[in-house]
Amino acid sequence: MLHFPVSEFKSRLKKTKERMAAEGIEVLLITNPANMNYLSGYDAWSFYVHQILVVLIDEEEPIWIGRGMDASAAQFTTWLKKENILPYPDNYVQSTERHPMDFVCDVLREKNQANKKIAAEYDAYYFTAQNYISLTQGLPNATFSNSNNLVNWVRIVKSDQEIEFIKRAAAIVEKTMYKGIEQIHAGVRECDVVADIYHAQISGTEEFGGDYASIVPLLPSGEKTSACHLTWTDEKYKTGDPVILELAGCYKRYHAPLARTVVIGKPKPEMETLAEAAIEGINAALDIIKPGVACEEVELAWRKSIQKRGFEKESRIGYATGLNYPPDWGEHTASLRPGDKTILEPNMVFHMIPGIWLEKYGIEISETFRVTETGCEVMANVERKLFVK
Amino acid sequence: MLHFPVSEFKSRLKKTKERMAAEGIEVLLITNPANMNYLSGYDAWSFYVHQILVVLIDEEEPIWIGRGMDASAAQFTTWLKKENILPYPDNYVQSTERHPMDFVCDVLREKNQANKKIAAEYDAYYFTAQNYISLTQGLPNATFSNSNNLVNWVRIVKSDQEIEFIKRAAAIVEKTMYKGIEQIHAGVRECDVVADIYHAQISGTEEFGGDYASIVPLLPSGEKTSACHLTWTDEKYKTGDPVILELAGCYKRYHAPLARTVVIGKPKPEMETLAEAAIEGINAALDIIKPGVACEEVELAWRKSIQKRGFEKESRIGYATGLNYPPDWGEHTASLRPGDKTILEPNMVFHMIPGIWLEKYGIEISETFRVTETGCEVMANVERKLFVK
Repeated sequence: MLHFPVSEFKSRLKKTKERMAAEGIEVLLITNPANMNYLSGYDAWSFYVHQILVVLIDEEEPIWIGRGMDASAAQFTTWLKKENILPYPDNYVQSTERHPMDFVCDVLREKNQANKKIAAEYDAYYFTAQNYISLTQGLPNATFSNSNNLVNWVRIVKSDQEIEFIKRAAAIVEKTMYKGIEQIHAGVRECDVVADIYHAQISGTEEFGGDYASIVPLLPSGEKTSACHLTWTDEKYKTGDPVILELAGCYKRYHAPLARTVVIGKPKPEMETLAEAAIEGINAALDIIKPGVACEEVELAWRKSIQKRGFEKESRIGYATGLNYPPDWGEHTASLRPGDKTILEPNMVFHMIPGIWLEKYGIEISETFRVTETGCEVMANVERKLFVK
Repeated sequence: MLHFPVSEFKSRLKKTKERMAAEGIEVLLITNPANMNYLSGYDAWSFYVHQILVVLIDEEEPIWIGRGMDASAAQFTTWLKKENILPYPDNYVQSTERHPMDFVCDVLREKNQANKKIAAEYDAYYFTAQNYISLTQGLPNATFSNSNNLVNWVRIVKSDQEIEFIKRAAAIVEKTMYKGIEQIHAGVRECDVVADIYHAQISGTEEFGGDYASIVPLLPSGEKTSACHLTWTDEKYKTGDPVILELAGCYKRYHAPLARTVVIGKPKPEMETLAEAAIEGINAALDIIKPGVACEEVELAWRKSIQKRGFEKESRIGYATGLNYPPDWGEHTASLRPGDKTILEPNMVFHMIPGIWLEKYGIEISETFRVTETGCEVMANVERKLFVK
């Protein structure tokens, strides 16, 4: 069930170890499920219990440590040899007496790593305070430090096969977005539109099926469009409602997110103006993208453009995306915002989502793009406009 | 958008404060999204950035702290007054220079809580090591301790309205499970079956729509049924394949999980024996459930029953369930397993899922049940058998 050749996993691991060496890290502990997948292939919905991938700088293969019943998933989905798949007993699960990180300490002691320089992802999903406490108490002779987003930064430049996966995700999101827009009418329940969206996301295309996106479809409507992360209800759409659709296509955990805004009936003139300003701003930002440009310059191009129309936006307008697991499809590395000096390189992929939320309504129009050798390529082909039903 | 009367939120808060007082906690920090929802009503897909609910023992209302763009979602979905909704600026988001918990420290200092006894959910989802480090460094005069699952334990006995929500979720899972079983045939792609499952989950019934479940549908097939947390692929089912379906109906974040196993074509005799043993075991366990019985006794009834057939199972056979967010619909309190001495009370709700996974295949048949005054009530009405297609 490996989705990439073993050589690609080894190349990812090599880059990871180079960064480890540069930072003096001998043991890297990974709980971010996307980073676990990136280095090992591991793919299962088991991150609700503690699991970890251990990279030892001197060892050829990482070590997977997880719950006993998930060891078979590790065998199905990773390139690791069986000896490197180490399951912990079920009485470690949500126990008040023992913690899975105690087991991890035992493994590290056994492998003579108890006095090494260990780094962990201190702010990653699923690396809890208790993980930190159990590890630092269990290995008092080790030195602990924050690896920050070390593997995430390796992930930021995609391989050609990863780009191909994101293109497939984009083909799915095109189909899904048009299906959602088509289904929105006054009198239809929000949940029924979302049901059709899910159906399109998961069935995918005839050539390839869809995977679950790391964020559920976000569809605030009416005044709730001012609250961008609300999900749906079972209320019916009303004439005059604006509806934001933010959703992704996903193929084998690779995402192509996209947002569009629909108005049921005639949009208010101020909504049309807002949409025009947003589209102009996106076009201005896309226009300047090419290798060598800094992330903050992309945001600046957007900001200058909307300022001409008298609009402002405080939050960042985009972030790196690709491989991911709930609760986020963002990669937590580069952001398109003031102060971010990351230099764009070919095959970086971003979701540019410069939503504008005012007091009573908001608008979101977004694009996922890839940096090419000479500019950028927008991944999904969905009309960039305010849709009117 | 409140789904419960304010009086119910206040009663939940009162019980929480009683536990805080008993444990000498003056300030409780909550990041578990289900606990945030339970006490405040807050409901949005924003837990991918740091957010926290602060309960001060001397203050009538909790304080919501989250990202600026989510403050409007807090106003839409909570019973909190506007002054208790405290957004942090966007430059705290995934920044290398400042952390949202620094902002939380500022708030606690301003409210004269910097030298109090503070407890946090050390092993909760989204309470990262960095949260812990930033808080303890930022408030050196406070005393920090692990609240463990304090609010989760308040949640374990449901109100009548919560039971009604779980019944609606059960109505959705009945419809969804039968739809999934109906669609499974040799030659059909796994993703197309899952697309129909999602459609049924989200559209719900004519009376009420469905919400997203905290775990995606788990549908391992063939030999992969030995790996219970694998998701789907776009491969086609083959004659002879066993297929496990583990999924939930969800209504306004309340879950009714359910698992069934299907065989395409004639099941092998050993599969039929395994299914019979599992069903006998479930029946034996359900039979002894009533208020006053300990969780470990329920597991013992199951274990004794399957031992007669020569089977063993190491892992727990169930857990409390109800209100939840990804990545889990389990409540992390009582488990049906040896050593768990939690005494059953009316309106506790559990998912009993005694899956048995052997080397080459596995089976899952489960029920969500409510403890009643005299016994138990199985929530979904789906035939308890090995389905054969």
